[in-house]
Amino acid sequence: MFKKNYLLAPGPTPVPINVLLAGAKDTIHHRTPEFVSIMESTLEKSKMLFQTKEKVYCLVASGTGAMETAVVNTVAPGDKVIVIDGGKFGERWDDLCKAYGAKIDLIKLEWGDYVRPEQIKDALDRNPDTVAVFATHSETSTGTVNPIKEIAEVVRNYKAILVTDAVSAMLAEPLKMDEWGVDIVATGLQKGVMLPPGLAMIALSPKAWARVKACDSKHYYFGLKYYDKSYPDSPWTPGVNQIYQLQAALDMVEKEGIENVWKRHQILADATRAGVKALGLSLLSKRPGNVTTAVFSPLDTGKLTKLMRDKYGVTMAGGQDHLKGKIFRVAHLGYMGKFDVIVGLSALEMAHTEMGHPLPLGVGVKAAEEIFLKEGI
Amino acid sequence: MFKKNYLLAPGPTPVPINVLLAGAKDTIHHRTPEFVSIMESTLEKSKMLFQTKEKVYCLVASGTGAMETAVVNTVAPGDKVIVIDGGKFGERWDDLCKAYGAKIDLIKLEWGDYVRPEQIKDALDRNPDTVAVFATHSETSTGTVNPIKEIAEVVRNYKAILVTDAVSAMLAEPLKMDEWGVDIVATGLQKGVMLPPGLAMIALSPKAWARVKACDSKHYYFGLKYYDKSYPDSPWTPGVNQIYQLQAALDMVEKEGIENVWKRHQILADATRAGVKALGLSLLSKRPGNVTTAVFSPLDTGKLTKLMRDKYGVTMAGGQDHLKGKIFRVAHLGYMGKFDVIVGLSALEMAHTEMGHPLPLGVGVKAAEEIFLKEGI
Repeated sequence: MFKKNYLLAPGPTPVPINVLLAGAKDTIHHRTPEFVSIMESTLEKSKMLFQTKEKVYCLVASGTGAMETAVVNTVAPGDKVIVIDGGKFGERWDDLCKAYGAKIDLIKLEWGDYVRPEQIKDALDRNPDTVAVFATHSETSTGTVNPIKEIAEVVRNYKAILVTDAVSAMLAEPLKMDEWGVDIVATGLQKGVMLPPGLAMIALSPKAWARVKACDSKHYYFGLKYYDKSYPDSPWTPGVNQIYQLQAALDMVEKEGIENVWKRHQILADATRAGVKALGLSLLSKRPGNVTTAVFSPLDTGKLTKLMRDKYGVTMAGGQDHLKGKIFRVAHLGYMGKFDVIVGLSALEMAHTEMGHPLPLGVGVKAAEEIFLKEGI
Repeated sequence: MFKKNYLLAPGPTPVPINVLLAGAKDTIHHRTPEFVSIMESTLEKSKMLFQTKEKVYCLVASGTGAMETAVVNTVAPGDKVIVIDGGKFGERWDDLCKAYGAKIDLIKLEWGDYVRPEQIKDALDRNPDTVAVFATHSETSTGTVNPIKEIAEVVRNYKAILVTDAVSAMLAEPLKMDEWGVDIVATGLQKGVMLPPGLAMIALSPKAWARVKACDSKHYYFGLKYYDKSYPDSPWTPGVNQIYQLQAALDMVEKEGIENVWKRHQILADATRAGVKALGLSLLSKRPGNVTTAVFSPLDTGKLTKLMRDKYGVTMAGGQDHLKGKIFRVAHLGYMGKFDVIVGLSALEMAHTEMGHPLPLGVGVKAAEEIFLKEGI
C-alpha cells in the first residue's frame, strides 16, 4: 500500500530537508578552532530559544538527559524538592528526584489538570528550605500547559529555584526565561527545534548557578561545571554533524521570527481544537497548550492510531497509562503548517468512519479552515 | 510567512527523499564496466514503465527532447504526418513536425476534447502514405486523456507508425505499449517517474525501427542509431547520478506494483474531480485523465494560483493561451497520496473564500474522503 509519512506525534517531529541535509557535511574534529567557533556562534544563537542572556549548554543526550542534568546538579541526597506531577513527564521529574535521593513534596494533579501557582506557594510555605521546584512546561501526555510565568512569580520569592522541563514546549509555547525568572530550562531538540533526535540543551540563571555551586552531589557526564569550564567547547565529544543541523534550524527560526513561531503554534493548536470539537470529540486538558491536543475518542485509540499509522501513514500518539486506548494525541509541533492540521483532521474523520464510528466528513476540516481564514495565514 | 511546499502542478512533481538522496553517491566514470552494468539493469527494469520487451533508451534531455527524438528519427522533409492537436502539447508535435519540414494533416480539437479513433482512420484513409501519427496520451494543458489503445487499433492497419507523447501520462495512465501496438513512446522522468527534471526516455516497436532505418533525416544528438549501437551504454555522456535516482524510483514502482500505481492515480483523480464538483466548480475536459484536473474558476486563476503558491505554499498550474486566467490545473501525479488531494482541495476552499468567492468549506474535502473510504485506501 502506497503511503507518505506524516509525523503528527509530539516528537520526534518532521525534520525539514534542509536541516536533515545540513548534517551531510564533513565531520571535522571537535578540538579545532574551526569547530569551537561553530559551537560558539551556535550556542550564542541558541540563547534566542530560551530568551536568555545566560550561556546555554548543549548535551549529547535526549531530553531526559537534560532533565537529569538539572536534577543531578541541584539536588543532593536528602534535599527537599517540590515536584509537580500532572502526567507522564511530571512523573519523570519524580522518578529522577527519587533516583537521586531527594525528599519530594509531590503536587499530584489529575491528568489533564494544571498546577495553580497558589499550590506551589503553599508547598513552599510548608517547606521554605526547599531547594528546587520541578515543573513541566508542556505536559505532553495530556496536552496541558502549566502557567510557568505565574509559577516563576511565586518561586522567585523563595530560596528554591524553578526548574522547568521545556522539552516539548520549546518554541511551541512562549518562554521568556530571563524576563519571567525561570532558573533552569531543560529541553530536547527533536521537537519544536526540528532536529532529528540526539541533542538536548539546558540554560541556568545566576540563582541556579549559585545552587549548582552549593550542591554537593555525585555526577560526571552531566556535570555542568565541566560544561561551563570548557564553554563554548564541550567537555566530552559534541554532536558535530548535529550541530550543523542545529545551525540550519536556528537560521529557520531566526528567519521566521520567534514571536511568529509561537504565534504559528498557537494558531495550529486553535485550529486543531476547533476541528476535533466540531467533530463532536472532547478534549482531555483543562488548559490545552500549543504542543499537542489530547482528545477522547469513542474508539479504542490503540487501534485507531495503528490504522492511521499503518494504512494512512499518519502517526499520532495514543494515550499512556490509565488513558491508554482512551485518548489520541495529535501534535502541532515544530515544522508544521496549516496543511498538517488539515491532514490530521481528515485522517481522523476517515479513520473514525472506517472503524465504525462515522464522524461528519469535512466538518473538522471546515472548522480548522475557518480559523486559518480568520487568522489570515 | 511560514509555508511548506506542496507541488501539485503537473510536473516537476514531488521527489521522494530516498530518490533525491540516491543521487548523492560517487559520480563514477560512465565508460566503465561498473556503470555500464548499472545502465543495463536500469534500462532493463525501465521496460516495465512502457510494458514493452523492446529496448528503452535514456536521454539527457527534457520530455521535449524525447519528442524531438521521435520526430527527427522518423520524419524527413516532405513526409506526410498526422498530428492530433488538442492543446499545448498537441501543438508541440505540430511545432516539431513543422520545424523538420513535414507535411502535416492537423486534427485540431477544441481544448478539453479528445480525438476519436474514427478521425484518425479518416485521415489515414485520405493519406495512406502517411509515415506517422503523432498523438498526445495525456494532454496536460487540458487534463484530457486520449484513447491511445483504440487509436493504436486503427493505426496498426496502416503503413504509418503511432507515436505518443507519454511525458505526463507515464505511470499515471495505464499504458501497454506492446499489447496495444504503440510504435513509439516518448516520456520525461520528472513527472510520474518521480525524478528531478533532467532525463527522458523513448522506446520503439519493430515497426518503428523499420521506419527509423528507412528515414533519411538529419540529426545527431537525438540519433537513435547511435543510442542503439552503444546500448546499454550511451553514445554521449549519460546522467550518471540521475541514473542512481532512477534506480531508486524504479524500485519504488516495482515495490508498489505498476497496476497499483495506475490504480492509485485513478483514485486520486476521481477524488479530486469529486471534490471540485462538490464545490460547485466545473471541469474543462470531456475525457478527464489521471494526470491533472483542469477546472474553471469564477476567479482570475492567475491570481488564485499565485495566492496559493506564495501564501499557502501550494503550487498548482494556471491555464495556458486562451484559458489563461480562466482555469487552474491541480495535479495528482507521481509521488502523491490521498492527503495531497486533501491539501489541494482544502487550499482551493480557503483561497476562493479568501479571494471573495466563498466556497462551502470542507465540502470538497468531504467528497474526496468519501471516495477514499469507498476505495478502501
